[in-house]
Amino acid sequence: MAHRPIITLTTDFGSNDHFVGAMKGVILDIVPEAQIIDICHAVQPFDVLDGALTISQAYSYFPNRTVHVIVIDPGVGTARRPILASSDKYHFVAPDNGVLSLVYAREDRMHVRHITSEHYFLQPVSNTFHGRDIFAPVAAYLAKEVDSLKFGEEVEDYVKFTAPKPKMAEANRLRGVVLKVDRFGNLVTNITPQDAPALFANAAKGFKIMVGSREITEIRNAYAEGSPGEVFALLGSMGYLEIAANRAAAAQLTGAGKGTEVSVILGQGTAAGKGA
Amino acid sequence: MAHRPIITLTTDFGSNDHFVGAMKGVILDIVPEAQIIDICHAVQPFDVLDGALTISQAYSYFPNRTVHVIVIDPGVGTARRPILASSDKYHFVAPDNGVLSLVYAREDRMHVRHITSEHYFLQPVSNTFHGRDIFAPVAAYLAKEVDSLKFGEEVEDYVKFTAPKPKMAEANRLRGVVLKVDRFGNLVTNITPQDAPALFANAAKGFKIMVGSREITEIRNAYAEGSPGEVFALLGSMGYLEIAANRAAAAQLTGAGKGTEVSVILGQGTAAGKGA
Amino acid sequence: MAHRPIITLTTDFGSNDHFVGAMKGVILDIVPEAQIIDICHAVQPFDVLDGALTISQAYSYFPNRTVHVIVIDPGVGTARRPILASSDKYHFVAPDNGVLSLVYAREDRMHVRHITSEHYFLQPVSNTFHGRDIFAPVAAYLAKEVDSLKFGEEVEDYVKFTAPKPKMAEANRLRGVVLKVDRFGNLVTNITPQDAPALFANAAKGFKIMVGSREITEIRNAYAEGSPGEVFALLGSMGYLEIAANRAAAAQLTGAGKGTEVSVILGQGTAAGKGA
Repeated sequence: MAHRPIITLTTDFGSNDHFVGAMKGVILDIVPEAQIIDICHAVQPFDVLDGALTISQAYSYFPNRTVHVIVIDPGVGTARRPILASSDKYHFVAPDNGVLSLVYAREDRMHVRHITSEHYFLQPVSNTFHGRDIFAPVAAYLAKEVDSLKFGEEVEDYVKFTAPKPKMAEANRLRGVVLKVDRFGNLVTNITPQDAPALFANAAKGFKIMVGSREITEIRNAYAEGSPGEVFALLGSMGYLEIAANRAAAAQLTGAGKGTEVSVILGQGTAAGKGA
Repeated sequence: MAHRPIITLTTDFGSNDHFVGAMKGVILDIVPEAQIIDICHAVQPFDVLDGALTISQAYSYFPNRTVHVIVIDPGVGTARRPILASSDKYHFVAPDNGVLSLVYAREDRMHVRHITSEHYFLQPVSNTFHGRDIFAPVAAYLAKEVDSLKFGEEVEDYVKFTAPKPKMAEANRLRGVVLKVDRFGNLVTNITPQDAPALFANAAKGFKIMVGSREITEIRNAYAEGSPGEVFALLGSMGYLEIAANRAAAAQLTGAGKGTEVSVILGQGTAAGKGA
Repeated sequence: MAHRPIITLTTDFGSNDHFVGAMKGVILDIVPEAQIIDICHAVQPFDVLDGALTISQAYSYFPNRTVHVIVIDPGVGTARRPILASSDKYHFVAPDNGVLSLVYAREDRMHVRHITSEHYFLQPVSNTFHGRDIFAPVAAYLAKEVDSLKFGEEVEDYVKFTAPKPKMAEANRLRGVVLKVDRFGNLVTNITPQDAPALFANAAKGFKIMVGSREITEIRNAYAEGSPGEVFALLGSMGYLEIAANRAAAAQLTGAGKGTEVSVILGQGTAAGKGA
């Protein structure tokens, strides 16, 4: 069977408009045999960190030579550059606003190019929809195996941010934050097993986790291990500590959301001072 | 043209996260020529009956050899088994929690296997995302025509529930329930023409249908036959009695929703005792 | 590589039900090699104009021979006709209710046929779901290159409406309307550069735009050029004047929505008489 190139789409365009449909049309007009895969179109509007999280959790499962298109682009039409970032396995086409930061953090060798070859663009290029006019056609030509060298010069000063990391606030208190609330109301924090090895050790004891005024003293292995109404912690599939509940939304039960502080207090009894 | 295997996805993962995208990546990495079809990702969270309804309404339209993946899986990470159910035409990959019950009810010969062949899984297998780590890769290998025998032993004690059936409450009163509210606000009940043949006979007369305190005395053939503001009954495309309105949401007009009782009273005048 | 036919779907079916999945199954059972592309399933329920806008903004980007299926169909099951409209490049399969009006307005030579060849339908045909029973299979046979002549006789009296156009209310006052609010809260009006050339001229001066009681005196080239909290105007990628804000929802900031009047007052100082 002939090679069918794969192009994935991750955007904040939502599903109510023609935006994603127009991008798909542009791609297929250039490379009709492409397989277009929607990763997510519900990234929070304008939220570059949310987009960075989403693509970082999905891209690595795809086969070699997949072209990933990421359009969270509040700066469309300004001086922010369109870029093509290439690893050994993948191409990433995106605005240069940091939305690839978590990919850069995981990939050793990335070559990042400023896309300037306007003859690959859909003309006339609008000031407001580069997903359709620049990112989609560039991805399509990459899928057609146009050499990445042809899209523009390599740059070193591309935008890269560091995702918020948990910090030791006191000797035994690690302060993290809720990165996102998932579909099920689980609170995904920025705390990894590397940040708090003792917490994830077998039979961790004497810890507590504070989410707002809620105190959590149980770590479970699976969502269904929680008792009804209980809020507990768990190592989620994204690789982060999650605050969760069994068949219920921890976000609702705790009143917490994106940005809420989450503190892990290690090596301390939990008998006294239960949170309100 | 070479055979392109088809894999469908039905989940409660919603569209806001990377979950579905990660599953698609895992599938395509194993079988890049697969055509992945989204049936629905908005099954109510944790709602196995809602998932059972959704797959039962869509699976049979697909061509022979389609692999259907269904992940409504509140018990992920516990002892609940991953299963592969095969009919003459299709494979179904799902957790063994009853989500295939309405498929079992329609298919005569199903062979159900407990999936145990871990070398087909994505390693390491998480405790919280078997859609990515077990169901997606197993579906991909099935699409590559790995024999179903290879995934595990056949079992007979798989979980099967009976969808709620309407009951004769009195001689002429059939009590049913709203199974779901669709996109347009139509109330889809569990009442079929077999349950109340007289109701669907030509020129049915002297019946009334009670939804909460709302009395319905008209059966229409099409949504657009309703008068403005009227709530009426109709045989919907799912094969069930629906309570509907013309260009309006019957759910809103009646205040009813999933789980609301719907009674059909047959062979009785409707002159007296109009509902409030 | 062999030709893979492309079929696009634009509906008001939403994403919560099995409707779209069933249509895809019907298509693939007839033409398994088809590539099915979702343009949008979140057209406002029953809103033919919203559907007309959506397909008109996406269809022309697709390659030759694409079959576009549009199902916004409040009259399903009544005398409204199913039609096949063909241009030089595309086929459109839809109910004859005006949903193709904006396509007709852009395409010179359209041949419109009343689809009557029932042997291409999925039997039995329901009264409530022609997306599955008529439009999907007809699109699939078109994708298989069944000649459009075979689906029914050409008609001239197909339903066509004119999208609401802006009008000169007074010598210098153009009255338009908000056609839709997009994902980002931008207010997309029905005013084009042709309607108000002076407004889009370089260095347009002395104009103001009223949206409800909000007065707008700035035109920007890109969303990100707006100051925090500022509401401004911009020529959007749909070809219409948009009322927008930088990383914020103009709909929220102005309280305006679909149907709100938007007036452009040209050639007048803006110093006096600021709106309330």
